[in-house]
Amino acid sequence: MDLKKRIEALGTMPGDLFQKDFLLTWEKSDASLVYILELAGILMQMRQENISSKVFDSGLAVSIFRDKSTRTRFSFASAANLLGLAVQDMDEEKSQISHGETTRETAQMISFLTDIIGIRDDIFLGEGNKYMREVGASLNEGFAKGVLPVRPGIVNLQCDMDHPTQSMADLMHLKNHFGSLENLKGKKIVMSWAYSPSYGKPLSVPQGVIALMTRFGMNVKLAYPEGYELIPEIVDLARNNAKASGGSLQVSHDMKAAMKDADIVYPKSWAPFKVMEQRTQLLTKGDKQGLVELEKVCLARNAEHKNWEYNADKMKVTKNQDALYMHCLPADISGVSCKEGEVSAEVFEKYRLLTYQEAGFKPYAIAAMMFANRFANPAEQLAKLLQKNEKRVF
Amino acid sequence: MDLKKRIEALGTMPGDLFQKDFLLTWEKSDASLVYILELAGILMQMRQENISSKVFDSGLAVSIFRDKSTRTRFSFASAANLLGLAVQDMDEEKSQISHGETTRETAQMISFLTDIIGIRDDIFLGEGNKYMREVGASLNEGFAKGVLPVRPGIVNLQCDMDHPTQSMADLMHLKNHFGSLENLKGKKIVMSWAYSPSYGKPLSVPQGVIALMTRFGMNVKLAYPEGYELIPEIVDLARNNAKASGGSLQVSHDMKAAMKDADIVYPKSWAPFKVMEQRTQLLTKGDKQGLVELEKVCLARNAEHKNWEYNADKMKVTKNQDALYMHCLPADISGVSCKEGEVSAEVFEKYRLLTYQEAGFKPYAIAAMMFANRFANPAEQLAKLLQKNEKRVF
Amino acid sequence: MDLKKRIEALGTMPGDLFQKDFLLTWEKSDASLVYILELAGILMQMRQENISSKVFDSGLAVSIFRDKSTRTRFSFASAANLLGLAVQDMDEEKSQISHGETTRETAQMISFLTDIIGIRDDIFLGEGNKYMREVGASLNEGFAKGVLPVRPGIVNLQCDMDHPTQSMADLMHLKNHFGSLENLKGKKIVMSWAYSPSYGKPLSVPQGVIALMTRFGMNVKLAYPEGYELIPEIVDLARNNAKASGGSLQVSHDMKAAMKDADIVYPKSWAPFKVMEQRTQLLTKGDKQGLVELEKVCLARNAEHKNWEYNADKMKVTKNQDALYMHCLPADISGVSCKEGEVSAEVFEKYRLLTYQEAGFKPYAIAAMMFANRFANPAEQLAKLLQKNEKRVF
Repeated sequence: MDLKKRIEALGTMPGDLFQKDFLLTWEKSDASLVYILELAGILMQMRQENISSKVFDSGLAVSIFRDKSTRTRFSFASAANLLGLAVQDMDEEKSQISHGETTRETAQMISFLTDIIGIRDDIFLGEGNKYMREVGASLNEGFAKGVLPVRPGIVNLQCDMDHPTQSMADLMHLKNHFGSLENLKGKKIVMSWAYSPSYGKPLSVPQGVIALMTRFGMNVKLAYPEGYELIPEIVDLARNNAKASGGSLQVSHDMKAAMKDADIVYPKSWAPFKVMEQRTQLLTKGDKQGLVELEKVCLARNAEHKNWEYNADKMKVTKNQDALYMHCLPADISGVSCKEGEVSAEVFEKYRLLTYQEAGFKPYAIAAMMFANRFANPAEQLAKLLQKNEKRVF
Repeated sequence: MDLKKRIEALGTMPGDLFQKDFLLTWEKSDASLVYILELAGILMQMRQENISSKVFDSGLAVSIFRDKSTRTRFSFASAANLLGLAVQDMDEEKSQISHGETTRETAQMISFLTDIIGIRDDIFLGEGNKYMREVGASLNEGFAKGVLPVRPGIVNLQCDMDHPTQSMADLMHLKNHFGSLENLKGKKIVMSWAYSPSYGKPLSVPQGVIALMTRFGMNVKLAYPEGYELIPEIVDLARNNAKASGGSLQVSHDMKAAMKDADIVYPKSWAPFKVMEQRTQLLTKGDKQGLVELEKVCLARNAEHKNWEYNADKMKVTKNQDALYMHCLPADISGVSCKEGEVSAEVFEKYRLLTYQEAGFKPYAIAAMMFANRFANPAEQLAKLLQKNEKRVF
Repeated sequence: MDLKKRIEALGTMPGDLFQKDFLLTWEKSDASLVYILELAGILMQMRQENISSKVFDSGLAVSIFRDKSTRTRFSFASAANLLGLAVQDMDEEKSQISHGETTRETAQMISFLTDIIGIRDDIFLGEGNKYMREVGASLNEGFAKGVLPVRPGIVNLQCDMDHPTQSMADLMHLKNHFGSLENLKGKKIVMSWAYSPSYGKPLSVPQGVIALMTRFGMNVKLAYPEGYELIPEIVDLARNNAKASGGSLQVSHDMKAAMKDADIVYPKSWAPFKVMEQRTQLLTKGDKQGLVELEKVCLARNAEHKNWEYNADKMKVTKNQDALYMHCLPADISGVSCKEGEVSAEVFEKYRLLTYQEAGFKPYAIAAMMFANRFANPAEQLAKLLQKNEKRVF
C-alpha cells in the first residue's frame, strides 16, 4: 500500500500511547494495540523504501538488561538507531543498580538526556514489572519537579508477567501471515507447554501470548501437563478478554488433543508458576542448596513429559496438517540443540524461516512503542518525514 | 534570556580552552572557568528549546574508565551524543591498557578518528592525573608527527587529585540556585567529612570543591576529624585561591560548629590522604593481607566518628536552618542505604530533588569542556547552529 | 591530489566487491585490491579535508569478537562511524553464540537492520574462516527468502588463515611510504619469525602478509627457525602469486642472512602451524593438562631461538642499514614490554611512529571494504558526497 495513504489512515486512528509507558498489553486499549501494529508496519515499509525515519537528532535510548539477551538487545538497538537515538547500556557489571531507594535515584541519573528506557527483568516473580513501575514513578517525579527536561518513556523488554514486544511482534507476524487482524477471528491458536531439558524458563511469553491473542477473537487453547500452571490472574484476564472479543480460552492437559485443527501452534517450555514462586523465594534468600534441590526435582518432573514434543505426529492433526508454527527463539530442537526438546528437527526445519520472519517484526514493534510514546501525533511526524524524504542509505 | 543574545555575549568573553585538556580546575584561568559555565548553560538552554547542538557529523568520544561508574559514564555519553560524537568504551576487560610504554602506544591506537577522550582513574594516589598527562603527551607527539589528523582533547572524569566535571557541575548548580556567580561572594560553604561504613572513598571531590569554590569569593570551611587530611598541596592551593578572590578557607575539626550559619553544606566521606598513600603502596605491591588489615584499622577509626552525620541537629545551626545540601551521589543515607551514614534520611529527603538537579548539570559541563576544546570560537559555532535551527526532536 | 579528480579516476577502475564478503585477500582480484586501496585513500583524504562521508543515515555495524582486541575494535568502530553506522557489539559474555545450528539462527537475529558484520575469530585453526562462511551462508538464505531486507556484508577482522584488514592497511602504508604500488615492484620484504616470551600467537598476520605482498611484484623472504612452518597451502599460494606477479617467495632459516639488503622487514612471532593444530585439538577436547604441557614444550622450544630478535646487528645488513620496520602492534620489545622479545628497544624506537602510521590506515581500509560491499558504484556515491559537501566538523 502507498505509504502516504497509509500514514493518512494512521492519522484517523485513535490510540492512547503518548507519554504512556508500554508495560503490559492488557493495560492498553484495543485501539492502542492496533495503532502500534500499524505504526510498526509503516516504519518497516519506510525502511524497505529507503526513507529515513530519524526523528531524533540526538538523545539516548538506555537499555537495562538484568538477564542475558541477544534477540531483544539487538531489536532494541535497531529500533533506537532507526529513530536516531544512541543506545547506552546500563549493565549491572558496569555499575550498581538495584531495587528500592537506589532505583529511584539511578533512574534520574541515567535520564538527563534520555528519551527511552528499555528494561528486561524477568527472573524474580513479582519483581520485574514492579521494578519498571518504580523506575516510572521516579521519572514522573523528576519530570514534575523540573529535574528532567523530558519524561523518558519505558518499554518493557520482558518481565515476570508479560513480554509485550514479543507478543506484539508475534501478532504482527500473524496479521502479516493471515492478511489482516480481521482474518484472525475464529482462528485456533494453541499455546502449549513443551518439554525442555532445562527448567525455570520464564512465564512471560505464554502469558503474553494468551493475554494478547484472546483480544482479537481467536480461539486460544492453553495446553500443559497438570501442575504447569501460569499465573492464575493472567489466565483469568485472558478468559475475560476472550469473552469480550468473541473468542475463547480453553485449557487442555493433552498436547496432541489440543493441537486438533489448530491454525497456529506455539509449543514452548516454561516453569510452573508455583516453582517460580519457590525459586524466587530461594533466590531472595540466597539458598543455593535449596535451588540445587529444586532444580533436581523440577528436571525429574519435566522428564515425565518428554512426550510433550511438537513433531510430525502432532502436526498431522492440525489444520491441513500444516498449522503455522511459532516460537520466540531459540527453540530447544530435538537432536540439534539438545537430545530431546520442544520440537522435532524435521518440523522445526519446515517452519524455521517463518520463525525468523516472526522475529524480524520485533525491532519495528519496539520502534513503534518508542515513537508513539514520544510524539503526540505520530502520523503528522511521519508525513513530515515522508515529505523531507531523506534516504536511509544515501 | 534570549539564546541569541546569550551567544553574542559569550563571543565577547575571554577564555583559553581551545586545544587544552581539562585536567585540573586550578590550571584554568577564572575567565576560562566562567566561560565553561556559560557555554554549558547555553547548551542546556538549546536542548530545552529543542535546537540541535550537533557540531560533529561523525567522530568518536572514547571513554576510559578504570573504575565502576554510572553517573559519570552516562553524563559523558550524553555530552558526546549531544555534540554528535559516538561513544566507544575502552574497558580494561575488553582490552589491555596500562601505564608506561603501553599507554603511549594505546593512546594512538584509539585516536585515529577520535575527537575526545574522557578518562576516569582515581584509585591510585599519584597515578590518575599522571596517567592522563601520559596520554596527552603521547597524543601531542602523534599529532605533531602527523600520525593523528587531530589532537583529541582529554577530559578528566575523576582522578586522584580533582574531579573537575563534578565540581564544575556543582558550581553551575550554585550559580543557578543563587542567581549568579556574583551572588556566591561571601557565601559560606562547608565541605565536611561525614561518616560512612565504607573506607577508601576518593579525595577528588572534596579537593575539587575547595579548590574551585575558593576562587569565587566564597568562605569555605573544610571540616574533618583530625587525621582525615586531604592532600596538603591542594589545601594550600585552595587557601591561596581564597586570598586572591577575597574569600577564605578555614579548617575545623567539629562538624556542628563548622555548620554554623552555612549557606551551603557538602557532607561527604573520604579516606585520609595518608591512608590513600598506604593503600596505593599496598595495591602496587599486591599485598592483599596488608589491604585487609588496613581496611580493618580504617573502619575501626571511622567508627569513632559516627557522630559526623549531617542531620536535623546540624541543619538547625545553618543559615535559616536551611543550608543548601549538596552531594555528588550516591550518598550513604542512614537507615536507607546503610545503617549509619553520611546524612540522615530526613535531611536527605528534604534536599533529594536538589541533589538530582545538581547532577543534571554534569552532562552540560562535560559537553562544554568538549566543545571549547575542539573549537577556536565556540560562540561563532553556536551562532551558526542557531541559524541552522535543526530540531533536536524532529 | 584533487579529490574530485581522484573520485573520477576511481570511477574508471574495475573491481568486483559489491555484495561480496571480504574474507581472504586471495579470493579477490588484483583490481579489487587496488580498488580498495584507492577507495580507502579517498575516504582518508575526505576526512582530512573535513568532508562528511556518511552514506548511512541509520543502520548497524555488528562486531563479533571472539578474542580480546583494542586496535581492530577501535578501527572497526571508527570505520562504521565514519560511514554513519552505529556499532553494536555481540560479545559472547553478553549473549550466546557458537558454531553450527546456532550460528545460522543468530546470524539472522542480529541482522534485521544491519548493514555490516565484522568478525574476529582466530583461536581455533580451521574454524575462524569457516565460521564466517557459515554466517555468510545463513545471511544469504535469510536474504533470499525475504527474512532480511538487505544482505549484510561481512568483513574478516582476523581469522585463522588471514588478517585482511591488517595486510591491506600494511599495503596502504607501503604504497604511501614508497610513493606508489608500482614502486613496490622488486622491493625486498622480509616476513620473519621473531622470538617472543609467549607462544600461540596467530598465523594470520604472516600468512596475510606473504599472500598479499607477493601479488605486487615484491621479493618476499619468509624467515623462521625450522619447525615454525605456516599453513603449507597458504605458502604455496603465495609462491604462485609471486610467479604471476614477477616477484618471488623464498624461505630462509637464518634471520640475519634473510635481512640482507631488505627494503622492508616485518619481524613478528607466531606459533608453528603444527602446534596450532595440536592446540586446537586440545582446546576442542577441553584438555587443560594437555594445554599446560604443550605450552611448556613450546616455550622451551621458543627459548632456543632468542637470537631471533630484530636489532641493530640485523638492521645493519638491510638496505642502507635502514629497512622500513613494520609491525601490527603491540610488539614484544626487549627490555620494555618483556625481558627479551621480537625487537630491540633501540630499533623499535627508531620506527615507532612509522608503526603508528601503519596502524592508522586500518580504519580506512575497513571503511573501504564496508563501502565497496554496500554500493554498486562507490565513485558515484563519493561524487554525490563531495557535491553535498557536509562538513565532518561543523
